[in-house]
Amino acid sequence: MGGDLAPHAPIAGALLALRELAPDHSIILVGRTAAIQTELDRLAAQDRMTFDSLATRISIVEAPDVIEMRDRPTAAIRGKPHSSMVVGLKLHASEKADAFVSAGNTGAQMASSVFLLKLHHGLTRPAIAAMIPTLKQPVVLVDAGANVDCSAEELVQFARLGSVYAEDILGRPEPSIGLLSNGEESEKGNAAVKEAHKLLAAAGLNFIGNVEGRDILTAGSTRGSLDVVVCDGFVGNVLLKFYESVPELIFSMLAAGGIKQEVIAQIFRGFDYSDYGGAPLLGVKGVSIISHGSSSPRAVKNAIQVAVRAVESRMNDHIGRRLGHAAVTSA
Amino acid sequence: MGGDLAPHAPIAGALLALRELAPDHSIILVGRTAAIQTELDRLAAQDRMTFDSLATRISIVEAPDVIEMRDRPTAAIRGKPHSSMVVGLKLHASEKADAFVSAGNTGAQMASSVFLLKLHHGLTRPAIAAMIPTLKQPVVLVDAGANVDCSAEELVQFARLGSVYAEDILGRPEPSIGLLSNGEESEKGNAAVKEAHKLLAAAGLNFIGNVEGRDILTAGSTRGSLDVVVCDGFVGNVLLKFYESVPELIFSMLAAGGIKQEVIAQIFRGFDYSDYGGAPLLGVKGVSIISHGSSSPRAVKNAIQVAVRAVESRMNDHIGRRLGHAAVTSA
Repeated sequence: MGGDLAPHAPIAGALLALRELAPDHSIILVGRTAAIQTELDRLAAQDRMTFDSLATRISIVEAPDVIEMRDRPTAAIRGKPHSSMVVGLKLHASEKADAFVSAGNTGAQMASSVFLLKLHHGLTRPAIAAMIPTLKQPVVLVDAGANVDCSAEELVQFARLGSVYAEDILGRPEPSIGLLSNGEESEKGNAAVKEAHKLLAAAGLNFIGNVEGRDILTAGSTRGSLDVVVCDGFVGNVLLKFYESVPELIFSMLAAGGIKQEVIAQIFRGFDYSDYGGAPLLGVKGVSIISHGSSSPRAVKNAIQVAVRAVESRMNDHIGRRLGHAAVTSA
Repeated sequence: MGGDLAPHAPIAGALLALRELAPDHSIILVGRTAAIQTELDRLAAQDRMTFDSLATRISIVEAPDVIEMRDRPTAAIRGKPHSSMVVGLKLHASEKADAFVSAGNTGAQMASSVFLLKLHHGLTRPAIAAMIPTLKQPVVLVDAGANVDCSAEELVQFARLGSVYAEDILGRPEPSIGLLSNGEESEKGNAAVKEAHKLLAAAGLNFIGNVEGRDILTAGSTRGSLDVVVCDGFVGNVLLKFYESVPELIFSMLAAGGIKQEVIAQIFRGFDYSDYGGAPLLGVKGVSIISHGSSSPRAVKNAIQVAVRAVESRMNDHIGRRLGHAAVTSA
């Protein structure tokens, strides 16, 4: 029931995902059964044959409450225990589902995920890992909005989480980690960043040092290529939302300049946010994928694909090992 | 002597500016006399008639030291009192010049400006005001990099400074001020931003509330149009440098998509950073314009134009009155 386009987009996205996934994958739709069934019937009527071939892999679990976008996260969890958010995460926590995907209230998803799935040992906060399309390969931005006012230690945690994500989900061996700052020099940064720089230099990661705003889209700095950009969630959120608004600017300017819509669409295909549908909430002992509130069916499908990759690569075991190892080496 | 392209770009930019400015304006070139004279001779040889018509409005003041980009700001001021930076600012402080423009070491320019020009009463820090081209009119980003780790009170100071700048230099009556945050709701933000939100609501400014990263390029939020975006210099620096790297991304993609260079150049003409050549250091009792290290002659020329507008609009008197008034109303 989450997201601006629910229940259509999540359900249509689930059907798209099932068509791509191996036949042993199934999807549980969590929410108001009647609304879900109505949408399923509507979609089935559009393509009966495809729908029938997928129908056995779809089930519905009733969740009468809906957490609205305006609901405060913790109040939502307490006040709406029968929401699709809480019920869905409980299915995952009790191992009736291997992963959870939602386009609903991000704050509520974070709070519920931490509450129900628990954080890995050694972590104080989860972090959102977002994919930033660049001139080269996408870069992982972590934290993209889960935390404001982060400590240096938390920034290091984000680096560890982002590193595993880049390895397991993006297939980058020894991902290079950059610390977002207002200058390349190690003495540049706010207090938390300067301290984090020192800690990261000794963290056993492939830390390339501070990177600047200009190094993100080139996916590299003077110090080498860049896989993971570490920042606090305030900066990450501002940057991500700013970036999301750039295509509108470009399209308007190109359209005003007489470039045809189909040419524009063709050129910027790789920059469609739907391609990167889901941002995992890293740090929880489970797979909780956060999708944009305005996610299209295609974005939901891609979010589900991210969830599958996280499960199949055993990303969480990897995170647990990495954090455990870090705890030992820093002890 | 400041900037990656010195002494050529500052000198060529000064000549461009003199051609546009009224004949009662003159420019003092501060630096190594021999190097400046050589460049002046070179430029004169290219267009003798124009040069001769401007020559009486150019003078040189010797400054043998050069502050390098790597020099630490305060060490540079103390260690290089005969640098073009310090000598030039002293000319301004002693009223032998009405304004100072440099493309040199930004940190050294800030520190020297505060040291030599002094801050307005009631301020704890200066702030850099940068212009962000948007879909509509440019938006002022303040602070664009002078300060990291800002208090709520300092964010309010930036709002006051940015407001006067938007009024005097951009001609926007009652400029609308947005506070950059990770959500529109007043409870969103890091600790300083949340506190600043409360203070700004009672600051007597046209405060429209929190704005998000996505509201900048549209120059407006759901709460109305946007003239000034307030943030700490860490976030501002990251955002500005990120934005500066966007054109490269766009040009590469368009070129790869077969769009001709001249068409691209035509479309994105308004987004050339040279158009906004200079970012004033607001809060000092003087006019100190910071130019990008890679400023072209055209960017330097525009920075000089910004300086002239700041002087002619008596922006500093206005800032003094505004801050004095604020001190009274909050007393």
